[in-house]
Amino acid sequence: MKKQDILTPIGLLFGTAVVLFGMMVGDTGLMIFFDPASIGITIGGSFAAVLITYPADELKKMIGLLKISMTSSNIYKTDLIDQFKEISRRIRKDGALSLEDYVSEIEDDFLRKGLELTIDGIEPDSIKQILELEIEAIENEYNKGSKIFKIWGTYAPAFGMIGTLIGLIQMLADMGSPETIASGMSKALITTFYGALFANIILNPIGFNIQNKGQKEVEYRDMMLCGIESIQEGDSARVIEEKLINFLTVEEKRSYYKRMIEEEGVDGGVA
Amino acid sequence: MKKQDILTPIGLLFGTAVVLFGMMVGDTGLMIFFDPASIGITIGGSFAAVLITYPADELKKMIGLLKISMTSSNIYKTDLIDQFKEISRRIRKDGALSLEDYVSEIEDDFLRKGLELTIDGIEPDSIKQILELEIEAIENEYNKGSKIFKIWGTYAPAFGMIGTLIGLIQMLADMGSPETIASGMSKALITTFYGALFANIILNPIGFNIQNKGQKEVEYRDMMLCGIESIQEGDSARVIEEKLINFLTVEEKRSYYKRMIEEEGVDGGVA
Amino acid sequence: MKKQDILTPIGLLFGTAVVLFGMMVGDTGLMIFFDPASIGITIGGSFAAVLITYPADELKKMIGLLKISMTSSNIYKTDLIDQFKEISRRIRKDGALSLEDYVSEIEDDFLRKGLELTIDGIEPDSIKQILELEIEAIENEYNKGSKIFKIWGTYAPAFGMIGTLIGLIQMLADMGSPETIASGMSKALITTFYGALFANIILNPIGFNIQNKGQKEVEYRDMMLCGIESIQEGDSARVIEEKLINFLTVEEKRSYYKRMIEEEGVDGGVA
Amino acid sequence: MKKQDILTPIGLLFGTAVVLFGMMVGDTGLMIFFDPASIGITIGGSFAAVLITYPADELKKMIGLLKISMTSSNIYKTDLIDQFKEISRRIRKDGALSLEDYVSEIEDDFLRKGLELTIDGIEPDSIKQILELEIEAIENEYNKGSKIFKIWGTYAPAFGMIGTLIGLIQMLADMGSPETIASGMSKALITTFYGALFANIILNPIGFNIQNKGQKEVEYRDMMLCGIESIQEGDSARVIEEKLINFLTVEEKRSYYKRMIEEEGVDGGVA
Amino acid sequence: MKKQDILTPIGLLFGTAVVLFGMMVGDTGLMIFFDPASIGITIGGSFAAVLITYPADELKKMIGLLKISMTSSNIYKTDLIDQFKEISRRIRKDGALSLEDYVSEIEDDFLRKGLELTIDGIEPDSIKQILELEIEAIENEYNKGSKIFKIWGTYAPAFGMIGTLIGLIQMLADMGSPETIASGMSKALITTFYGALFANIILNPIGFNIQNKGQKEVEYRDMMLCGIESIQEGDSARVIEEKLINFLTVEEKRSYYKRMIEEEGVDGGVA
Repeated sequence: MKKQDILTPIGLLFGTAVVLFGMMVGDTGLMIFFDPASIGITIGGSFAAVLITYPADELKKMIGLLKISMTSSNIYKTDLIDQFKEISRRIRKDGALSLEDYVSEIEDDFLRKGLELTIDGIEPDSIKQILELEIEAIENEYNKGSKIFKIWGTYAPAFGMIGTLIGLIQMLADMGSPETIASGMSKALITTFYGALFANIILNPIGFNIQNKGQKEVEYRDMMLCGIESIQEGDSARVIEEKLINFLTVEEKRSYYKRMIEEEGVDGGVA
Repeated sequence: MKKQDILTPIGLLFGTAVVLFGMMVGDTGLMIFFDPASIGITIGGSFAAVLITYPADELKKMIGLLKISMTSSNIYKTDLIDQFKEISRRIRKDGALSLEDYVSEIEDDFLRKGLELTIDGIEPDSIKQILELEIEAIENEYNKGSKIFKIWGTYAPAFGMIGTLIGLIQMLADMGSPETIASGMSKALITTFYGALFANIILNPIGFNIQNKGQKEVEYRDMMLCGIESIQEGDSARVIEEKLINFLTVEEKRSYYKRMIEEEGVDGGVA
Repeated sequence: MKKQDILTPIGLLFGTAVVLFGMMVGDTGLMIFFDPASIGITIGGSFAAVLITYPADELKKMIGLLKISMTSSNIYKTDLIDQFKEISRRIRKDGALSLEDYVSEIEDDFLRKGLELTIDGIEPDSIKQILELEIEAIENEYNKGSKIFKIWGTYAPAFGMIGTLIGLIQMLADMGSPETIASGMSKALITTFYGALFANIILNPIGFNIQNKGQKEVEYRDMMLCGIESIQEGDSARVIEEKLINFLTVEEKRSYYKRMIEEEGVDGGVA
Repeated sequence: MKKQDILTPIGLLFGTAVVLFGMMVGDTGLMIFFDPASIGITIGGSFAAVLITYPADELKKMIGLLKISMTSSNIYKTDLIDQFKEISRRIRKDGALSLEDYVSEIEDDFLRKGLELTIDGIEPDSIKQILELEIEAIENEYNKGSKIFKIWGTYAPAFGMIGTLIGLIQMLADMGSPETIASGMSKALITTFYGALFANIILNPIGFNIQNKGQKEVEYRDMMLCGIESIQEGDSARVIEEKLINFLTVEEKRSYYKRMIEEEGVDGGVA
Repeated sequence: MKKQDILTPIGLLFGTAVVLFGMMVGDTGLMIFFDPASIGITIGGSFAAVLITYPADELKKMIGLLKISMTSSNIYKTDLIDQFKEISRRIRKDGALSLEDYVSEIEDDFLRKGLELTIDGIEPDSIKQILELEIEAIENEYNKGSKIFKIWGTYAPAFGMIGTLIGLIQMLADMGSPETIASGMSKALITTFYGALFANIILNPIGFNIQNKGQKEVEYRDMMLCGIESIQEGDSARVIEEKLINFLTVEEKRSYYKRMIEEEGVDGGVA
């Protein structure tokens, strides 16, 4: 159901293309950059460090996290405002119990659970605690996932440098003609190159991508929690709207007010 | 309506001029610094990393953010104190309802909404919550925007180094006369040069500029919120003034007291 | 009783193998990397800095911390939920005192103490304070331990560089043929190599490993505390379950709901 | 009225002397370090980046901030304790109103305002809010000022490196004899030298100096606020003394107790 | 009365020995590392920056701080638990007033003051405030002291680099034979060497040492405060013990329970 986040593969392709272009500009060809031992030291060594750093159950998540970085989140903030205004009106008209059917059809698990607990008459404080615990858990999950990639992103250049040092020490220990030196040094630099490339075109951007998606998800859940609390406090549709609107970005606000004016002729005053 | 922030273009021009001057001092001319492939790797590669890092809707804001960094904010703190003193006096004299016309003419959306909700008799706690959510949203918006430029500012030198490594590896793999080496190395260094320049003259300063503007905006909104809360608590004009004065800088305070003394003969004691 | 955390030794072995492979690729052999004086400066010097940094009783813990990084924690979150649901049902049926025998057989000291204090009728606030103090103490213990390795991990490359500077100064002060220079420089680089290797394959990964294990332990204790508080507040089994489920990861939740459906036919709604 | 903080000019002079001495030790003379274009790139370029980073009204404060870094703050903590003990005794004897004359002669604006508001019978909560807002404003002012110098301190070495890269690229593009190279490289390094020197002998130390002065000022205001709150709560002279003594450093405490014993024969027990 | 912290001098001696050994391994002797001008630039220059950074009264503390880093703190946590259990029993038996003689003989100033204020019947909230202010003051004192050394530890390598740049510029400006270059470069590197050594074997370790001692001291005071509050709340000896035990490390707990079992046959359950 999730849409693809096309920017992630576009960025990966574009970045790789730009770097490949730079590598092909000279007369030396691409093959001088291909050295399996160097790739082994940089990627293998830094992955070994990641293996020590994280327990198995965290590492298992990495594939799922990569998928997350490739999909865009299902976030429909303006629909959520409409939904909460509708809920508030129904409660005012027919009471909370009339919502049961409406709520059971909500697709989002977090929102449905929150509203179900509300209708079931569980104490507001307990509901808040349950939902806050869940938001915290979501935040933790994303942050931990993001950190795996970022820590790998610090190990990769370090192992690139370790590979370069190995190459330099070997080269200096066994010097022949200047050209042998040059070729040795070229090989030595390849590991640093792979370390920097791997960290800056894959690991760090993916790490930050996951962090940003987590932030978005948490904001969306906070917005739902804010709405659910508002319902519990019996706020009017207007107050709920005023509260939830603040979770929109400037642009989203503008298009929301535009639609409001068109639909209802409301004069929205928030810039 | 926004005034231009002339320091941003002045800084950009002055910085470019200084660097260009340094590039022209020798006999080598400017053309040795012009290498499209290098610019491509540094700017293109680091932008690719930004594409992976951020979702599309965040990136769309970058143009708007650049505009923000070029305009100065509409912040009139001393006028705001006068306005709140006026409001406090009117309420004491004629009651809150007499304010309706006065408030509906306020240009600033945030301030008008806060006062309108107050007059409408919405509960103080709800108003505070709504306005705090809005301030938080403003803060988030600026911080996220600022961070896009700062993260780009960390990718740019990294891709500068990646370009330099590509150049060095190519050069060492195919060495001819010392002069060929020198020219190869010169080209290799150009990407590092562009990475450092792009990060330190554009990306980081713009990133911090936006962060500073966000801080200013948030302080201004906090000042409004403090005033609105004061009105709700029924504070006298004197207490409101004492509270709001603390949002002025030392210099603004001095000029405010000077005006006070001239206008009303008040002996302002706050340094 | 603790299971071994096989990833730590696997990572150490794999990382060492990868680096050794890189060192053996050339024709120079492994012996050029073996230089007792270099190892002495890097490991000895950085350990001396650690000796100054930490008091004796902290350093004594290092062996125990290494063991912790090699074992995986005993954490059974889904069992804990079952346990708390069972406890809640027993209390509802037979009252708190009927739990005495059940509780005295709990193996985990933290959980048993918390429940014993509850049955003994100690005030909920005192119990919460005692358990929170203990969780804080656990967190402190792990964080301090993790930091010893991380600080050593910053000293190691610094002493690697100090060794390299010593080598370079010696080499430059007494230059003979280019080959002498090369051999001297090769030796100089060996200390930097050891510093980077020691920090990135052992010290930093072990430091982060301990930090991650501490985080897991603290989360587990927080889950227990949440359950104990829930028991004290007289929450129903359903509310306890809803609260504790949030301490599970997405995958654990899925398998928990699957088991629930199989066992009881419950329709679990949380994604 | 402010005393001079002699350590700032002493440090500047001593640091400059030490570096100048190092520059004169060889036979090359000081003139090889003088290169207007290099100074222009480093200082001019980094200042351009500061211009983009900060709005005009922040930059205007820089002169004032430099003056602050040269003067020492008027802080007399033990006198303040005596003053508050005196005030507490007077209130106990003659009531709060008897203080009016005493208070109006207090020189420090913050302290006088706080006490005046107390005597005027403004609500304690409002007074606390006003004074806390003022302390926060002071803290902000110093922190922002300190940050301008620190951010300049990060731009300066960056532009030093940019200058060095310009020099190196020029040199490599146009190579003649080894001596031309050496002279070119020497010039290239001069910008890095100026960047490092400017950042580490002026910008960073001044930045931290202002931060430290701000911290001192805030502590002093916190001490005043603590005393004013104590007065409002009707604390006895002994309790006020016990509270305020904690704002003294170990050494100040010692000399305070020594004076107490001499004056009153009190047996001070706090180490 | 303070015991010496032998690890600090041992670390200093061991680290110096290791580095000296590395310096003597070659045939070049120690004298090539001795260059008064280099030492002057590195240590003198970085100290000048410290002079600008800190006011005189902070710098005066440096000698005292060095002494602190050489002595180990008087911390007897298990004795403290016994003491509080004894106090709790006495109060239950004979009332608070019977403690006067017992308390007046307590050597530790902080603990004695806290208990004296309790017996004197000062309000618990005031006592807590006084003691918390004192703990905060202790924490501040150590943190500030630790930071002086750490900031010096960042200036030292910076001035090492400045010295190296001076040497390189001089060398490149006046080149003779390759051997002159080598000797010049060797001298240039000496300042970097001193900067790295001074920072990593003295300044940073001493800075962290003081920070760790401060943390220990604060934990000990927190434990006292926790006990004093427990006494005020009238907790039983068992609850006091359960609370205070959490301030022990795992090992201290084990030995505490062992002693308990030997003495009283108590079955201690905390791991």
